[in-house]
Amino acid sequence: TVTTRNGLDFAVRDLALAEAGRHQIRLAEHEMPGLMALRDEFGPTQPLAGARIAGSLHMTVQTAVLIETLVALGADVRWASCNIFSTQDEAAAAVVVGPHGTVDAPQGAPVFAWKGETLTEYWWATQQIFDFGVDAEGNPVGPTLILDDGGDATLLVHKGREFELAGAVPDAQPGDSAEWRVIVEALRASLAVDPTRWTRTAESIIGVTEETTTGVHRLYELHRDGQLLFPAINVNDSVTKSKFDNKYGIRHSLPDGLNRATDVLIGGKTVFVCGYGDVGKGSADALRGQGARVIVSEIDPITALQAAMDGYQVARLDDVIGEIDILVTATGNEGVVTVEHLQSLKHLAIVANVGHFDNEIDMAGLESLPGAERVEIKPQVHEWRLPNGRSILVLSEGRLMNLGNATGHPSFVMSASFTNQVLAQLELHTKIAEYPVGVYVLPKLLDEKVARLHLDALGVKLTRLSDRQAQYIGVDPDGPYKVDHYRY
Amino acid sequence: TVTTRNGLDFAVRDLALAEAGRHQIRLAEHEMPGLMALRDEFGPTQPLAGARIAGSLHMTVQTAVLIETLVALGADVRWASCNIFSTQDEAAAAVVVGPHGTVDAPQGAPVFAWKGETLTEYWWATQQIFDFGVDAEGNPVGPTLILDDGGDATLLVHKGREFELAGAVPDAQPGDSAEWRVIVEALRASLAVDPTRWTRTAESIIGVTEETTTGVHRLYELHRDGQLLFPAINVNDSVTKSKFDNKYGIRHSLPDGLNRATDVLIGGKTVFVCGYGDVGKGSADALRGQGARVIVSEIDPITALQAAMDGYQVARLDDVIGEIDILVTATGNEGVVTVEHLQSLKHLAIVANVGHFDNEIDMAGLESLPGAERVEIKPQVHEWRLPNGRSILVLSEGRLMNLGNATGHPSFVMSASFTNQVLAQLELHTKIAEYPVGVYVLPKLLDEKVARLHLDALGVKLTRLSDRQAQYIGVDPDGPYKVDHYRY
Ligand SMILES: NC(=O)c1ccc[n+]([C@@H]2O[C@H](COP(=O)([O-])OP(=O)(O)OC[C@H]3O[C@@H](n4cnc5c(N)ncnc54)[C@H](O)[C@@H]3O)[C@@H](O)[C@H]2O)c1
Ligand SMILES: NC(=O)c1ccc[n+]([C@@H]2O[C@H](COP(=O)([O-])OP(=O)(O)OC[C@H]3O[C@@H](n4cnc5c(N)ncnc54)[C@H](O)[C@@H]3O)[C@@H](O)[C@H]2O)c1
Repeated sequence: TVTTRNGLDFAVRDLALAEAGRHQIRLAEHEMPGLMALRDEFGPTQPLAGARIAGSLHMTVQTAVLIETLVALGADVRWASCNIFSTQDEAAAAVVVGPHGTVDAPQGAPVFAWKGETLTEYWWATQQIFDFGVDAEGNPVGPTLILDDGGDATLLVHKGREFELAGAVPDAQPGDSAEWRVIVEALRASLAVDPTRWTRTAESIIGVTEETTTGVHRLYELHRDGQLLFPAINVNDSVTKSKFDNKYGIRHSLPDGLNRATDVLIGGKTVFVCGYGDVGKGSADALRGQGARVIVSEIDPITALQAAMDGYQVARLDDVIGEIDILVTATGNEGVVTVEHLQSLKHLAIVANVGHFDNEIDMAGLESLPGAERVEIKPQVHEWRLPNGRSILVLSEGRLMNLGNATGHPSFVMSASFTNQVLAQLELHTKIAEYPVGVYVLPKLLDEKVARLHLDALGVKLTRLSDRQAQYIGVDPDGPYKVDHYRY
Repeated sequence: TVTTRNGLDFAVRDLALAEAGRHQIRLAEHEMPGLMALRDEFGPTQPLAGARIAGSLHMTVQTAVLIETLVALGADVRWASCNIFSTQDEAAAAVVVGPHGTVDAPQGAPVFAWKGETLTEYWWATQQIFDFGVDAEGNPVGPTLILDDGGDATLLVHKGREFELAGAVPDAQPGDSAEWRVIVEALRASLAVDPTRWTRTAESIIGVTEETTTGVHRLYELHRDGQLLFPAINVNDSVTKSKFDNKYGIRHSLPDGLNRATDVLIGGKTVFVCGYGDVGKGSADALRGQGARVIVSEIDPITALQAAMDGYQVARLDDVIGEIDILVTATGNEGVVTVEHLQSLKHLAIVANVGHFDNEIDMAGLESLPGAERVEIKPQVHEWRLPNGRSILVLSEGRLMNLGNATGHPSFVMSASFTNQVLAQLELHTKIAEYPVGVYVLPKLLDEKVARLHLDALGVKLTRLSDRQAQYIGVDPDGPYKVDHYRY
């Protein structure tokens, strides 16, 4: 339930963790030069004044720096996590308390997130981010913007409104996921209490900025089907996001999660990585860097050929399942690892998903497998004793283990991603007329700006084009430096 | 001058080299599964019948397999190299003799290329590819298609026509390159002999397919300025071209060229790579793989940040010039290495350009540097004794050293590039109505087809999407598998 203290709503594990969180935020700020540069550049002019941002994104220390950057630029912010396990409780507490508040008189931003939410709690928390109180006339105030990761907040608004317009919430169907059942029930309860809540919320929202592949995919589908209610900026496909966060972020946090969860030596092991997109590339690179033999699977001949050219065996999971010590999923697809696969693994093979949803591995099937027994080794690390007498280790219950078993992506890559987020929120808030309903990527010049803000911290010295050279290659010496279709 | 034997025109070093060339072509065919698959698929139906292709692309063993594939699909082909040093004389001879001909009765395709052309010879050879004899009425017959690399053939047609329409060829200006002077003189001579030659040639051409970054860049500029005369397919930006050839090709052929030219150990040396695009990425990767310390320069903050995240120091050439043992240029820009840079290098530092034109290094400036002396160590390897008492080693006179000092890209990557070329020629020849004047990339499905044709040879086992998975990620199980803006 929501606590209100000093006029501030929140639902976090323990506000007393705020001091520990603040220390970490301080260190993270040093590793997030892009966000700090935006505070310097835009703090004085408060360009986000009047923006009410509903945020749904892993409530980590890095996100705390993002939230406080949005606030520093003038925005009103309410936040939930976009994953039941990814919250860092001390970061959540520190954001509520704020840099200048105290536990007794918090002065930060409302956060509704704790590590280890149930699905019901998760969707409850997500609902809280849309509720910006009442105006002078006592009318409920909704957000103007969503900042989303994976599209759950956007989904809730779209589905809520759809069911309100239909006047009823349909029953979940057999085969629907457990999560969908929870969403349906949450919306059924909402409809009973306030039958226009989501319709109003949708009206108050001018746009959404979306962080990740899966969410962006949902947005393109919604738009294709004519159902998208407001413009969306696809932050994922900024080069400084997908080619950095997805790849270099996972390169850092996948082995980190494996180590913290299992302390198993990666070197020498046979690792199978499903998917060779950006996340798969970072995964394979990191594990090879640790001395593992890496095998990759792909459905796309181009990415399959890339994997081969990068020196990886490319195989079907079925064909090598018995050789695998560590199984990593990075496809963003569903049903990639079946219960049959899980039962064919070696004893104590490790199963680690870094691909967004838990349906990438058939966790539902495992849970209903007769004779399978789940033993908690420690939180987010479970031994599943299988009917065949072997065990497997499943990390984070099949959800993102780099967030569940470690602390997610490191600050530096998140700085690049989140600098894109802030620039995207600024675009929508200050230039909404330029964005009719649709899905957009940020202009390349802003993408290059994000990169630029991260060079000094790494000691990078950029070369400047002479006018003559710029003319020769047909670009402005200040950028953009590449044609739009350039792939990096 | 052109030799005609058995009705076939050619100008190559020595037809007697044909047998040696044929052996190499046979081995290359084994490494070029994409081209061989196209022969199997399209040979029977001869879809290129009626196409007259003017080809300007490094006359190597791999290009021989391309040429013979075009011929196997029904095309008439005439060929020149697009670089004065890149011809493999035995490959040129073998193409002229053909798989079924003899030195005395060649039955192959007309080739005008030899290793070590002068610029005048080069532009003479380029002119020969446009001349497809005369028709039944005795009227000259021109090509229907250009297959270009770097855009020289396309340039010649555009400039030739422009000067013909103007009625005169302008004088070269002070500061114009030596090469431009040669082009101007060649066109002046042509205009005097046949004042409508290029206008006619331009009319007979329905389109061009362009191989590389630099040529594509010229095409976009021509189109932007409304001067492009026919549609162009940008083969360079097929994923299976730029992300394979430019990157993995150079990863192979840059160290190969360094070794063959100098036999200097790369390990431990400090190498500077100018540019971190696809070619720069492959260069840096190869040299790091050999144990060099690699420093990169970039003008684009995004690619600079990529280089940093990949673990390279990113610096300005000026700042580290005195530390460099091997200097590699991979920018496709001009004046990247100045005469001052060359004079600041360590004694016997190696200068290697893999970035298309020799103006990337100020070779003209070096040649006119008072007191500088050029000593030929062996062909394409020159010691330049500088006035400061130090020497530097310049490879391939500042031109593409991976082609000049080694044999260019290996067959396997060229198979991917050239399979795109053949598909692009097929598109234009069979579907020209779908291509109004403009610059196009191949449809993604064809790009994926190119990749697919190369998987078996590497033992890659592709996973197939289930219908349910395909629906979940919103693609057809047969592809295309990615949105158009996907970067790979
Ligand atoms: N764990 C994290 O911190 C994190 C960070 C960023 C993104 N993600 C998530 O990771 C997933 C992948 O992201 P990405 O940017 O790499 O996307 P991507 O589209 O670049 O890569 C996914 C790859 O998986 C392949 N694939 C699809 N179905 C497959 C199957 N059945 N078998 C084998 N391969 C298959 C696709 O061809 C594609 O190449 C997404 O769900 C994204 O939301 C996670
Ligand atoms: N040697 C070969 O066999 C071969 C093969 C393919 C392409 N090429 C040629 O190589 C060149 C590069 O091709 P690419 O595909 O990598 O292109 P690219 O555009 O991907 O990369 C060029 C990079 O150089 C950078 N750059 C431009 N000017 C610079 C400067 N003054 N200093 C430092 N960096 C600078 C650009 O920002 C860019 O990132 C082109 O000329 C292309 O035609 C050569």
